[in-house]
Amino acid sequence: MMDQENFRRYGHEFIDWIADYFEKIEEYPVRSTVQPGDIKNSLPDNPPVNAEEMDKIFADFKEIIIPGITHWQHPGWFAYFPANNSPASVLGELLTAGLGAQCMIWQTSPAAAELEEVVMEWLRQMIGLPKGMVGVIQDTASTATLCALLTARENATDFAANRVGMRQPLTVYTSEEAHSSINKAVKIAGYGIDNLRSIPTDHNFALIPEELEKAIENDLNKGLQPACVVATLGTTSSTAIDPLVPIGEICHRHNLWFHVDAAFGGTAALLDEKRGMLSGAEMIDSFVFNPHKWMLTNFDCSAYFVKNKELLIRTFEIHPEYLKTGHDAVVNNYRDWGIQLGRRFRALKLWFVIRSYGVQGLQEMVREHLRLAELFKGWVEEDSRFELMAPVNFSLVCFRLKKAGVSEEEIARLNTDLLEKVNCSGRVYLTHTSLKGRYAIRMAIGQRTTAEKHVREAWELIRRHAAAL
Amino acid sequence: MMDQENFRRYGHEFIDWIADYFEKIEEYPVRSTVQPGDIKNSLPDNPPVNAEEMDKIFADFKEIIIPGITHWQHPGWFAYFPANNSPASVLGELLTAGLGAQCMIWQTSPAAAELEEVVMEWLRQMIGLPKGMVGVIQDTASTATLCALLTARENATDFAANRVGMRQPLTVYTSEEAHSSINKAVKIAGYGIDNLRSIPTDHNFALIPEELEKAIENDLNKGLQPACVVATLGTTSSTAIDPLVPIGEICHRHNLWFHVDAAFGGTAALLDEKRGMLSGAEMIDSFVFNPHKWMLTNFDCSAYFVKNKELLIRTFEIHPEYLKTGHDAVVNNYRDWGIQLGRRFRALKLWFVIRSYGVQGLQEMVREHLRLAELFKGWVEEDSRFELMAPVNFSLVCFRLKKAGVSEEEIARLNTDLLEKVNCSGRVYLTHTSLKGRYAIRMAIGQRTTAEKHVREAWELIRRHAAAL
Repeated sequence: MMDQENFRRYGHEFIDWIADYFEKIEEYPVRSTVQPGDIKNSLPDNPPVNAEEMDKIFADFKEIIIPGITHWQHPGWFAYFPANNSPASVLGELLTAGLGAQCMIWQTSPAAAELEEVVMEWLRQMIGLPKGMVGVIQDTASTATLCALLTARENATDFAANRVGMRQPLTVYTSEEAHSSINKAVKIAGYGIDNLRSIPTDHNFALIPEELEKAIENDLNKGLQPACVVATLGTTSSTAIDPLVPIGEICHRHNLWFHVDAAFGGTAALLDEKRGMLSGAEMIDSFVFNPHKWMLTNFDCSAYFVKNKELLIRTFEIHPEYLKTGHDAVVNNYRDWGIQLGRRFRALKLWFVIRSYGVQGLQEMVREHLRLAELFKGWVEEDSRFELMAPVNFSLVCFRLKKAGVSEEEIARLNTDLLEKVNCSGRVYLTHTSLKGRYAIRMAIGQRTTAEKHVREAWELIRRHAAAL
Repeated sequence: MMDQENFRRYGHEFIDWIADYFEKIEEYPVRSTVQPGDIKNSLPDNPPVNAEEMDKIFADFKEIIIPGITHWQHPGWFAYFPANNSPASVLGELLTAGLGAQCMIWQTSPAAAELEEVVMEWLRQMIGLPKGMVGVIQDTASTATLCALLTARENATDFAANRVGMRQPLTVYTSEEAHSSINKAVKIAGYGIDNLRSIPTDHNFALIPEELEKAIENDLNKGLQPACVVATLGTTSSTAIDPLVPIGEICHRHNLWFHVDAAFGGTAALLDEKRGMLSGAEMIDSFVFNPHKWMLTNFDCSAYFVKNKELLIRTFEIHPEYLKTGHDAVVNNYRDWGIQLGRRFRALKLWFVIRSYGVQGLQEMVREHLRLAELFKGWVEEDSRFELMAPVNFSLVCFRLKKAGVSEEEIARLNTDLLEKVNCSGRVYLTHTSLKGRYAIRMAIGQRTTAEKHVREAWELIRRHAAAL
């Protein structure tokens, strides 16, 4: 059993290991090369009866676990979206773990509650959301979007759903390119997936407001009750930007809850030149973006903002005797701002990140990633074997290898093959998507340490393997 | 901005700070003494434009944040339930933060998915749940119970609620002493709080099976559809134990989902002598307990077990193109086992804890806490000024100062006063509850470093302040 003196010794060892890991991460293959079952088969079927030495545990971590890790912090990470951490954020997490405070209500950790209030207000200012919106840290955008759909449900039923159950056929609207978490939340919140309308998108993969209007009218004519619209700033497949102004006006006209999912794209609003996408933000009821994606803050840290906190709190609040305190009227008890009662002190790492980089430092990182994406886009455009598959709105480039006169299936097979060969190099990791039925490779740039040379290497690998196909 | 070399330097400094914190934690008042607004008023209204030095940030952490921390790891922690961490767990969290892996599906971190499968099987064996039950780590018991209520909803409607929405009046049953998270989950899942039946408890605060049966019959007669029963092993107010065998038989007879909330109490099942409460476990459909409460594992780590994983997965699964991989048939993709898509590598710290302490080490800790609670209970019984308010089933003692011939309100005021005086000592922190309308002080023992002397000190403080009242 590890005592407190050993904590100091192994703590130093682990810090050095992480520092070395950061420095030598390029020696690892980005995507783990283990096969299903490899890790499981290396571990005992039963728990140890007796205490084991940390030396042995740490050795197993390095020998068994590390080969099964896909390295999200590798500069060759171009898969999915980034989930970048940073030295400051890791150290914030370390202190959070050491304190081990449970931050469900103000009284159980006043500093956690008040720091969360302060850094969320900083974040609001940093991305230019309207004054008066207030924020709370959620674990994921999935959860934040579920919170939005729940408040929308209560808002549409005058809080009857909470009381008597979900009985009315309420409808929800989002684009056909929206994230799967919206489908999931629609199911969880009891709307039923049949009541989610998938609104067509234009050639830029952005929601078409006229189609939204049409779908709402159609449902109204059927006697259904439209409740909520979810727009996206930076869709997962191609980072498309839904137009907030016309969507907001439709929501306003029909009195619908307006939620905006900017999980990835929201970070770009740190830049004045990208803030245009937030035009119409004064019509938004709720908004989520993930500092744990592209703002150097360890997962989990999802920033959820609402215009009217009373509606959010009324959706969730419960008042058992064992949680009552004398301060309830004057402080934020974040247990009532979401699903979970228990909460980690997540504001700490965010505070460390914002202060350690400064707004300017974060802006510089985002600007550099946008520049690298433009560079990569240019290379794709210059090479006639390839085609761009979507506008480059942020730091994601969707592209593929072309082939004339063959079926879409054939092109998909060709690009799957290319993608697999590139990923097997171990130097980079990219993933794919489907855009209106057409296969596309996604080059998502956003890892903290990704530099021009890594983007260039990715392109070289892609070109070389394309030539061999 | 903090670079990687500085990470090493400050990492060592922070490790030493945490080691010192563990050693000197008794110098802090358990409950923070700040007033609402104190922390907020010490922090700037706007984010810093320029990067700040870590020296300055860390100094502010120590000067501004620490006074606002309520010290959950203090050996004088007797409030709520414990949320104990441990040196091994903090180090596990450190590595998790350093790796920064996003563990939504097997492919994005094979080791995380497989280690989770292995340690959850270890846990199942450790507490003696039936063979065949499988586990997944959730963030909180609130979330796990919501998952249970969602699967119960789908199970009762043949997955129609997910499809067409929640339309049938489904009813849920739990004891009047059950945790508020059940009320919250009933609202979120669209049952409506009016369809939650609060079943009376006996003089031990345990659910009365005959009353459950009556409530179900009553609803059936009204044409309602009973869907789910939630039993508790260790209620929050008094750690009452609902009898699983008769409840399970009722569930079986009426074909209801049987969920068990053992958030705190589950850890005691590490001991053979406490495993009797799990008699009837073969009838359980889902079960949650929190290693982050009383098993030395940093929050968040809530262990959710189900008998039939297919029903759980069918409740949540979604299949967007950008998440499809070639391994989906042979691995666990835990994104489909709960609400969130994104997931931290939480299995690592649990693996560190189980191996570092061994099953025997964990059993010894639990046994010692149970012994301390018995000791405290004895002191209460010996002092005629006090009365015990509930059976001591685990390591929680509910008691209060008596006063003959006065109203319940007067007694509540007296004990509130006593509690506040004791807590203001800064040496200990206890909280209160209400048991069938009667005020009770809760002495919850379970912090890792709590020893007999701390329990003794708490009792001395209570006696001294009681004498002065």
